[in-house]
Amino acid sequence: MALIVQKYGGTSVGNSDRIKNVAARVARYRAAGDQVVVVVSAMSGVTDGLIKMAREIMPLPSEREMDMLLATGEQTTIALTAMALQSIGVRAVSLTGAQAGIVTDGVHTKAKIQNITPRKIHEYLDAGQVVIVAGFQGQTSEGQITTLGRGGSDLTAIALAAALKAGLCQIYTDVDGVYTADPRVVATARKLEEISYDEMLELASLGAKVMQSRSVEFAKKFGVVFEVRSSLNDNPGTIVKEETKNMEDVVIRGVTLDKNQAKVTMVGVPDRPGVASRIFNALAGAAVNVDMIVQNVSHGAGVQATDLSFTVDKPDLLKAQKVIESLRAEVGYTMVSADEKIGKLSIVGVGMRSHSGVAAKMFETLAREGVNIDMISTSEIKISVVISLARGDAATKAVHAAFLG
Amino acid sequence: MALIVQKYGGTSVGNSDRIKNVAARVARYRAAGDQVVVVVSAMSGVTDGLIKMAREIMPLPSEREMDMLLATGEQTTIALTAMALQSIGVRAVSLTGAQAGIVTDGVHTKAKIQNITPRKIHEYLDAGQVVIVAGFQGQTSEGQITTLGRGGSDLTAIALAAALKAGLCQIYTDVDGVYTADPRVVATARKLEEISYDEMLELASLGAKVMQSRSVEFAKKFGVVFEVRSSLNDNPGTIVKEETKNMEDVVIRGVTLDKNQAKVTMVGVPDRPGVASRIFNALAGAAVNVDMIVQNVSHGAGVQATDLSFTVDKPDLLKAQKVIESLRAEVGYTMVSADEKIGKLSIVGVGMRSHSGVAAKMFETLAREGVNIDMISTSEIKISVVISLARGDAATKAVHAAFLG
Repeated sequence: MALIVQKYGGTSVGNSDRIKNVAARVARYRAAGDQVVVVVSAMSGVTDGLIKMAREIMPLPSEREMDMLLATGEQTTIALTAMALQSIGVRAVSLTGAQAGIVTDGVHTKAKIQNITPRKIHEYLDAGQVVIVAGFQGQTSEGQITTLGRGGSDLTAIALAAALKAGLCQIYTDVDGVYTADPRVVATARKLEEISYDEMLELASLGAKVMQSRSVEFAKKFGVVFEVRSSLNDNPGTIVKEETKNMEDVVIRGVTLDKNQAKVTMVGVPDRPGVASRIFNALAGAAVNVDMIVQNVSHGAGVQATDLSFTVDKPDLLKAQKVIESLRAEVGYTMVSADEKIGKLSIVGVGMRSHSGVAAKMFETLAREGVNIDMISTSEIKISVVISLARGDAATKAVHAAFLG
Repeated sequence: MALIVQKYGGTSVGNSDRIKNVAARVARYRAAGDQVVVVVSAMSGVTDGLIKMAREIMPLPSEREMDMLLATGEQTTIALTAMALQSIGVRAVSLTGAQAGIVTDGVHTKAKIQNITPRKIHEYLDAGQVVIVAGFQGQTSEGQITTLGRGGSDLTAIALAAALKAGLCQIYTDVDGVYTADPRVVATARKLEEISYDEMLELASLGAKVMQSRSVEFAKKFGVVFEVRSSLNDNPGTIVKEETKNMEDVVIRGVTLDKNQAKVTMVGVPDRPGVASRIFNALAGAAVNVDMIVQNVSHGAGVQATDLSFTVDKPDLLKAQKVIESLRAEVGYTMVSADEKIGKLSIVGVGMRSHSGVAAKMFETLAREGVNIDMISTSEIKISVVISLARGDAATKAVHAAFLG
């Protein structure tokens, strides 16, 4: 008998039939003698519908009231899920984030969990009930309703698994687990049996849309082992856990292609101290999220100058261009160009640490494929290159074949 | 400067434009220097939609989970209403029933308010905010979410007005106030400036659909004076308050016709002790709500027998007939008949107490109109007769003309 925390996302509870499917799955675990805590998101489309209603009232609604509004989405799902369990004879009770003892700070719409007092959850579990908890929400110590921001339900599940010392934490989604590459692009992509937190973090931030980074970081911090698996079948998923020695035997865990980046290149930037910090402070001030930064010495005549390239999220490109334009006189660069038709191809794996020649092999593979590399950026367990978007899928296939077969 | 509690029903907050209208009205009171507490219902259609979702999961959902589910309806409205006020520059904050300090017993789906601790409401009012409270809901002292049943938002408003010692309690609805008769039937019907709690109670229970009896009873118990008025215009409404001396000058306050009753007649019921109690206990056991009861001596041969007639809510008729059928052998009546095509015509007024001949005048009026009376029932401030539904409107007009012009 184990205590299991299961999290079901919006599509898994998207209508009454799907909620019944969730209930049937929970019932199987319950029948096997497990204690089950179920965390659910709002039914798919509900949160967007609520946001639309708020925007009809006011373009930029107060964040406190947005939390009050959005929290109803998950509250609806917990009640329906509890009913679905009861309808098949499984005792179940629903709890809002507040009732479940999830206490957050007061930063509305992106609150951080401060602590969890799961007294009520334990009481209900001990009484033989399945406990359904509203994901994505909590309350401050003063009783204000808060929400946790994007990916908040995953965070609720992982934080509850930590607080309850659960034996198992399962994140149910619409994919079978974490793959070595996007199976829609790479036919030979395989599901991973396991992956380390750090690898998962690199994949999450690199555009493998399975989970938000913050949930993985939280799991890493509190040592919560969790499984990403599908709510549509009974296949085992991917276990995400602390790095183990044998994980290093695998050089590369996966290949990802992020198509949501754009590149800005500033040519002839004067090579003097403080220029880069001026540029990136200005971008940060405009809330532009900068990812890769590459600087090369430029061989211009006269003053010493460099070329500076960086990538930003595509929706931020216009904002970034405006910021750079506003710095033209002050910084004194020669020209600026932007390219939206890029892809960021990355390979990730803790095995890189103990295997040499990984970067060389990647570049060689791309060269053989005739793919030109625009930018390169590396971390301890990741190598990313910016290439032409048009060659993205072909490059992904070639790199996957070279490292993962 | 007064403290005003305003309650807006589901149609008054039925879409974003109507919510903006509510905000504009609240803003006018606020601009005049009043402190305003606003109680809102779920947007019209929302509660029914939630009930439908629950029924898709389970025909008879758990009442605790129904409360969890239904409470989201009002929570949505409070957030949107607060936003609508903020969008026109009025500081406002929303509170769930629980946050507003509304503590109820644990009878889910029809909880009773036990006490209100309006500490937070006072804090926000003192800080210059308009406070928007979710109607229809509260929580138990153990933190379970409860709902108050039908008409619950009116109850919330009146209970808050009592707890806050509000100077004014306004119940906004889609009618202008309480009328001497249904204006769609009686062209000369007039809006009443004032009415006593007892008269309002008789009218509420007699089918004048303005408010549920329990809210009026609560207001009477705690001496809360309230005004029923329209959210569609600025006309003054009807003040509901304790009976005053001059109210008795008016013989009849209003005429109502309840078309939602059906009549059951049992012929040849043995006239022995305990028979009536057996019949009405059985009906109560089946949750059939019996309204009027009339018994006449029957002139049958042999054993002493009576005819027994009673009225029930139309939807309960089939259930009532089954109960009566099941008692046939035990009770030993001769035959039973039912009539759905009846109307219950009533006149109400505290003035009846000091004016004689009111009943006679009513019967005379009906006789002159050629309307046959099936059953008669009277209370201190009300006379009701059961007549043919086909003559209902004509009878209403005639009686209104006779007493109210």
